[in-house]
Amino acid sequence: MNIGIVGLGLIGGSLGLDLKALNEHTITGVSRQSSTCQRAIQRGAVDDAHPDLMAVTSADIIFICTPIASIIPTLQKLVPHLPPTTIVTDVGSVKASVVHSAESVWANFVGGHPMAGTAESGIEAALTGLFVDRPYVITPTQSTPSTSVSVLETLVRSLKSNLYICAPEDHDRAVAWISHLPVMVSSSLITSCLDEPNQDVFQLAQALASSGFRDTSRVGGGNPELGVMMARYNKCEVVRSLKTYQAELSKLTQLIETENWPALEAVLQQTQQTRPQFL
Amino acid sequence: MNIGIVGLGLIGGSLGLDLKALNEHTITGVSRQSSTCQRAIQRGAVDDAHPDLMAVTSADIIFICTPIASIIPTLQKLVPHLPPTTIVTDVGSVKASVVHSAESVWANFVGGHPMAGTAESGIEAALTGLFVDRPYVITPTQSTPSTSVSVLETLVRSLKSNLYICAPEDHDRAVAWISHLPVMVSSSLITSCLDEPNQDVFQLAQALASSGFRDTSRVGGGNPELGVMMARYNKCEVVRSLKTYQAELSKLTQLIETENWPALEAVLQQTQQTRPQFL
Repeated sequence: MNIGIVGLGLIGGSLGLDLKALNEHTITGVSRQSSTCQRAIQRGAVDDAHPDLMAVTSADIIFICTPIASIIPTLQKLVPHLPPTTIVTDVGSVKASVVHSAESVWANFVGGHPMAGTAESGIEAALTGLFVDRPYVITPTQSTPSTSVSVLETLVRSLKSNLYICAPEDHDRAVAWISHLPVMVSSSLITSCLDEPNQDVFQLAQALASSGFRDTSRVGGGNPELGVMMARYNKCEVVRSLKTYQAELSKLTQLIETENWPALEAVLQQTQQTRPQFL
Repeated sequence: MNIGIVGLGLIGGSLGLDLKALNEHTITGVSRQSSTCQRAIQRGAVDDAHPDLMAVTSADIIFICTPIASIIPTLQKLVPHLPPTTIVTDVGSVKASVVHSAESVWANFVGGHPMAGTAESGIEAALTGLFVDRPYVITPTQSTPSTSVSVLETLVRSLKSNLYICAPEDHDRAVAWISHLPVMVSSSLITSCLDEPNQDVFQLAQALASSGFRDTSRVGGGNPELGVMMARYNKCEVVRSLKTYQAELSKLTQLIETENWPALEAVLQQTQQTRPQFL
C-alpha cells in the first residue's frame, strides 16, 4: 500500500518506523523542514520525504500527523488533488470537532487517535514500537465509508495497538475524564498552593512536598500549549467534566465541614476500591 | 541515652533500627502484641520490648509512635509514672491539635513529624535508613523547654534526616497544601468519573486511562483511614485549602467557558514554571 504521512514528528515519525518495518508498504513523508525530511529517511521512518505536500497525493491512505490546529487547513490543501478513493485519517487527540469539519471537506475521512507518546517531540523522538499495546481509537461517523474504516483498522492492528472503535463524541467525553480533566485538576492544585500568603508556610510546603504532591501535580505542570489545545478543541466535554468534578469536591468539603467522618470514609473507600478499574 | 518507643510499627520500628545501630543508646520498645515485641528484638529494632507501657517510664526520652488517636491516651497513662525530666515526643502527621493537648498534660512534650513511610505497615515493614534525607519536622511552642527541643534535635540529626523547626500551626498549614489537599483533589477526580451516566463512555474511559490519570488519582485511591485522619485532625487547614482550591478551579473553568485562551495559557505556563520549586 502507498502510505503518506504529513508531519514527521514524534507520532508521524513513529508511525513511519513501524509501518515501514512491516516491508509491505511504500511510505512517503512530508515535512516543511528539508532537514526533517532527510532525518526521517536516514532513520528509516519513510522511503522518501519532501517539503511539498503534493508528494502524498498519490498515496492510498494519508495520515495527517500535524498539530491539531493544522489538520483541517492541511486537508483543505490536499483535497483538490486527491482521487475520491484516497483515505485520509488524522492522529488528533480531540475528535468530534476535527472529524465533523474534516468530513464536510472530504467524505473519505476516518478520524483516529493513537494514544501513545513521550514528553519529547520531533523526528529524533520517534520510537519503534511506540503504539504496541497502547490504545488506538478510530472514530467513524454514520457517513464514514466502512471499507475505509476497515483499511485503517488493518493498519492499526499491524502496529499491535489495542483497537477501539467509537463515535467521536464518546471518545471526547472519555478522554475529558481521564486525560483533560486531570490536567485542569492538577494545575489548580499548583495555583492554589501559590495563593498561600504566609511566606514561611509557603517555603515549608515547598520543602516538605513529596511523592503525593509530585504525582498529583505532574500533568498540571506539563506543556501549556497542550493544555490549551485540550480545552479549546474539547471545550464542552472539559467544562462538563469540570462542573461534575466541582460538585463532587463540594460534597467532599461539606462532609469535612460537618465532620461526617463515616460518610467521608465511605467516599474514600469507594475511590480506593474503584481506582484499580482504571489501571 | 535510654530511649523508649511506644508502638513498634513501620515508624517506631524504623526509628528503633537506626537509633540502635548508632550503639549509643539503650532502646526499650512497647507493643500490645507480645509477638511484635519478639520480632522487634529479633530484628534489632530494640534492646528489649514488653507489652506493658510501664516498661518505658525510666527512659530519658519516649517516642509515642501509635496511631494519632492514641497519642494523648497513651501520654495520659504514662505521665503519673514519669519524672519531670522525661521528654515525650510523638510522630503524628498532624501537629497543632496533638501538641496543644499534649502540653496541657505534660509540660516536657515536644511534637515531631518524621515525613517518611511506605505503603506497608507493622514491624516487618520497618526499614533501616527510612528517615535519611527525609524531612523531620519538630514543632515546639512558646512553652516547650528549649533543652528538650535540643535533645530531640540531636537525635533527629543522628538519623541523617533533614531537620525543620516550626510552629505546629505552620506545619499543619504546609502539610494541608502538599499532602492533605492532594488526597481530596485526587479522590474527587475518581468519584466524578464514576458519575458518568453513559456506560459505553465509562468503559471507554477505563480502557483509555493512562499515566496521567494514574498519577493524578494515586493518592485519592490510598488508605481511607489515613484520609479521614488528615481531615479529622487537620480540619481547619484542610477546609481552608479546599476553599482556595475551589476558587482557583472556578477561575480556570471560567477561562475555558469564556474561551480566554491567552489567560488559560498564562495559568498553565505559571504552573509549569512553578512546579519544579516543590520537587
